[in-house]
Parts: sequence; C-alpha cells; structure tokens
Amino acid sequence: MNCAQAGAGALFLGIDGGGSKCRALLANEVGRELGSGTAGPANPFQNFEQACASIRQAADQALTDAGLASADLARVIAGVGLAGVNIPRIHQRMSQWRHPFAAMYLTTDIHVACLGAHGGEDGAVIVAGTGSVGYVCRHGRSHSYGAHGFPFGDKGSGAWIGLEALKAALLALDGLGPGTALLPAIEGRLEVDGLDIVAHMAGARSRDYAALAPLVLECAERGDAVALDIVRAAAAYFDHLAAKLLGHGADRFALLGGLARRIAPWLSPTSRAALVPARGQPDRGALAFAMARAATAVAEPG
Amino acid sequence: MNCAQAGAGALFLGIDGGGSKCRALLANEVGRELGSGTAGPANPFQNFEQACASIRQAADQALTDAGLASADLARVIAGVGLAGVNIPRIHQRMSQWRHPFAAMYLTTDIHVACLGAHGGEDGAVIVAGTGSVGYVCRHGRSHSYGAHGFPFGDKGSGAWIGLEALKAALLALDGLGPGTALLPAIEGRLEVDGLDIVAHMAGARSRDYAALAPLVLECAERGDAVALDIVRAAAAYFDHLAAKLLGHGADRFALLGGLARRIAPWLSPTSRAALVPARGQPDRGALAFAMARAATAVAEPG
Repeated sequence: MNCAQAGAGALFLGIDGGGSKCRALLANEVGRELGSGTAGPANPFQNFEQACASIRQAADQALTDAGLASADLARVIAGVGLAGVNIPRIHQRMSQWRHPFAAMYLTTDIHVACLGAHGGEDGAVIVAGTGSVGYVCRHGRSHSYGAHGFPFGDKGSGAWIGLEALKAALLALDGLGPGTALLPAIEGRLEVDGLDIVAHMAGARSRDYAALAPLVLECAERGDAVALDIVRAAAAYFDHLAAKLLGHGADRFALLGGLARRIAPWLSPTSRAALVPARGQPDRGALAFAMARAATAVAEPG
Repeated sequence: MNCAQAGAGALFLGIDGGGSKCRALLANEVGRELGSGTAGPANPFQNFEQACASIRQAADQALTDAGLASADLARVIAGVGLAGVNIPRIHQRMSQWRHPFAAMYLTTDIHVACLGAHGGEDGAVIVAGTGSVGYVCRHGRSHSYGAHGFPFGDKGSGAWIGLEALKAALLALDGLGPGTALLPAIEGRLEVDGLDIVAHMAGARSRDYAALAPLVLECAERGDAVALDIVRAAAAYFDHLAAKLLGHGADRFALLGGLARRIAPWLSPTSRAALVPARGQPDRGALAFAMARAATAVAEPG
C-alpha cells in the first residue's frame, strides 16, 4: 500500500466475520458509509475456504450496494475482524491469503466488536451471548478473559445458564434438588414430560442450551429461588470480569450479545455505573480499524 | 420353557452387557460356575445387531470354557442385564430377538449389578464411575436416581468431577477464580501449558473428563481447597442418593464403579455405616436373576 491509496478517493471496508455470518461495511476516506453486504459463515478455524469466500462475497455485495464494481476491490483497504484468528496458526494462514484488496489488516472479532462499541476508541466489552468473553483494549494492548468454549468455559453465557438450569430441573425431577419452576418451564419449552427431557437434550450443542436461557431469566424475574441462584451466579461472574477489565484502566465497558439486555439489571451497582451503551456494531469497528491502521501506515516513513 | 428345563441338568447363563464389553457366566442348576466368556460392546441402544452378536459370542465362549458345545445353548436359561433396555422401545426390540437360548429373561445392567453386589438378594447400589446412578430393588420393585447422561446428569461421577476441575483450572488461569493445584496437575497430565488446555479438551467426551478425576482426588487428599470443594460436592450428592435409597427400606448399599474406592472415604458417617462391600460382579447377578426367574416360572401353574 502507498500514501495515495489511503488518501482522497480511497475506499475503506470493515469486515466482521463469525461462525454464522459475515458482514461488510464500505465507506469513503472520511468514513461516510457507502454500502453494506452480508454473507455466510467466516470462521477460518472452522472452515478456511468458506471464510475467504464469505469475506469476498460480503465485500462484493457492499461494492454493488455502493454502485461500484468488483474491480474496485483493488482499491479497497480492508479491516477484517474474524473469529478464530486468536489462534496463531489460523492468524498466519489468514495473513497469507491472496486477498483481493489493496491492503488487508487482520484482527479478532472481539477486537472489532470493542472498537465498534466505543466508536473506534479504546474501551472494554463483555459479551453475554451463547458464549461469554471479556475484552479490553488500551493504548494498543489488549487482554481477553474467559470464553474457552462450552462446556468448560463461557461461564455466565446463555449456554452456561441453560445447562445449569437443565441440571437443576433433573435434580428436582429425581427429588435430589429443590423444586423449581425451571422444570415445568423446560418441559413446556421442549414439549416433553419428565425424563423425556433427557432423550430430547442428548447430544445438544451450546446453542441448544442457550435457547433455554430466556426461560431461566423469566423464572428468576418471577422469584424462583433456583433460577435466581443461576442468574445471580452468572451476574457475579460478569461483575468479576468487569472488575478485571476496569483494572486495566478502562473506565467503562459495553455489554454485548443476545443476553446483554436481560442480564444487565442483575449486575452490581459498581458494574452498572461503568456500563455504557454500545455506539456501533462490529463491522463499524472493523472499518475504524482499517482507517486507523491505514493512517498509521501513511504516517510511517515510506 | 417347561419344568424339565429348569430342573436337574439345566444350564444357567448370566449376561452383563454394556457399552464397552459383554461378560457371560455359565453355571449348573445349583449355581456352580462352569465357565465364562467375554465379548465386545452389548448396548442395544447404541447398536442392536452388535449387542446381539456380542451376547451370542460371550455365551459361546462360556460354553466352550465349560467343555460344552454351541448346540447346548438350546438348553441354556439366560438372565440378560443390558444397558439401554431401560428405554421401553429398546426393551421391546430386545425381547423380540430370536435368541439361541431355551429361555431369556431380560433386565437392566444396573439391576444385575445390584443383584451381583448383594448375592442375588434385595439391596441398593450407587455407581460412581465415568457416570453415576443410584438404584434400589426391594420386593420386586426398583427405583433409579440420577444418571441421565453427561454433561447435564451424572453428578458426582468421574466425568462430572473432571469437568468441574477443568472449569476451576481455567478460571484460575484467567485470574477469575482462586489459585489451585488443579491447574498444574491438569497441565502435567495433558502435557500442555496454559490456554493450550482449551485446544486439547475441545470436543472431549465424558471418558476424557473422567480421566482427570483421579488427579482431582489426589489434589483434594493433599488439601487443595478448590479440589476439596469439588470432591465434597460429589460426596454430598452420593450421601443424598444414599439417603434416597435407604428411604425405600434398604438397610445397606454397595458402592460400585471405578471411583468407588477413592470416593468412599469422603462419604458421611451415616452413609459409611450403611456401606457394604459388593459380594459379586454383575454377571453373577445376571445368573442369580436367571435362576430366580426360572424358579418363579416353574412355580407358576403350567
């Protein structure tokens, strides 16, 4: 890349790629949005070729949306945030991809999510979705906590909440744990009775457990003691995560993911005082990442 | 079957079939052991044809071991205890098997384990192995507690203990939980460091988690507070199970499975007071089941 590419007339592209979809956001040299695109999964750890194809497809869509042609990809400076590139060998392989862009800057999905949430500035985020993670980025250094995968990681996440609820419901069914509204709630949701829950959930994946989490929050909101214990344990974990992130000098954090709105009221007053709404989406963060990295490259002596 | 078959000269066979192997024990009409055999997996829920083949192969081996011929299967009265036949449709399908025996009496693997442990008499057992279950049989009625499968059931089991330890080790690694000897113990066992544990355990199955359980007991025995919490929670669950079983009128229980010897010292004094050593193996229980059912059949009016 040279200075001319990042100057007047340059095109910037933000890519947010994960295990279910890939989003692309195209902007001009001052960050004004020109078009967007969406494609399938883009997690190079799960499927490298598919990830590259999804990025290419989402990028093409964004150009078309902006009234531009595929050939214009050659003048695009892309910021690409992907799940899986926290693994060094995946990062290396992805860096060696013969991408169609003028330049590609690669980072993690959580990094662009954090940049998106804080308008391209330093900050911290906690994701409470099917999985969970805490992330802080300040002065070019980042720290990540949690995640690690289901069932041994992702504490407090939807999958974790769902699994804990299922365990409690089965203990109640056997008379080996306290009675709980979780049992009829899960029976109703799965449309099975009693021990048929077991056959229904055999081989379930993290998203299947996470699908039970809203029920658990409902039961907790209605005062069920067992559900309250689970939700309070999840919230206490997020409070602990938040303290870790703020300990790195961040003065605020955003709560992202499908459970964010439901779990926020359960956080401690200290956590809630530091909680800020997310300013933008991860694809906007990826765009900010591309523009910041291009500016740095321009500033460096040629 | 008729009276002559169960009378003098009759052959009785006990079959204990599970997900990893099938054992057969052959005896004469007074229960004197004549021969034994072992074959591969016999869980008709996992693989029906394989289960039938394994039973047949183990039975043939037992006859050969006793100096008898395959043709003698036609005068064998078999008691068959199998994993999976607690599921009604599997029980029905197995009952319809065109078996090679003079008669076949079918029951669950846990039932024959209980009969084996108590010399063919009423009693109760708790299994603490890769999975966990509590079972009591009195006056022809049985009750089962727990099991249900990993990761939502099998509390207190080896798989449960291993998973809880892994969760605690990863929290310690992130500084989100108390430091624990479990972390270096797991790193040493898996021969990986830090977050490489995650990649190593991704996609792990219950037996992989259960393989960590002996480490957890060692750490608890050496006083590690986190390991102690896990082992005490497992023991408290087994105490609860024992109370349930004794509540059905059983005055004793046997503790079976790969963790039995290690977990027994952690049980409450009340539980330990009711704990008796297992008198025999499940195949011996299956044999007792065959003899008892044949005697009942003989006693019934023709």
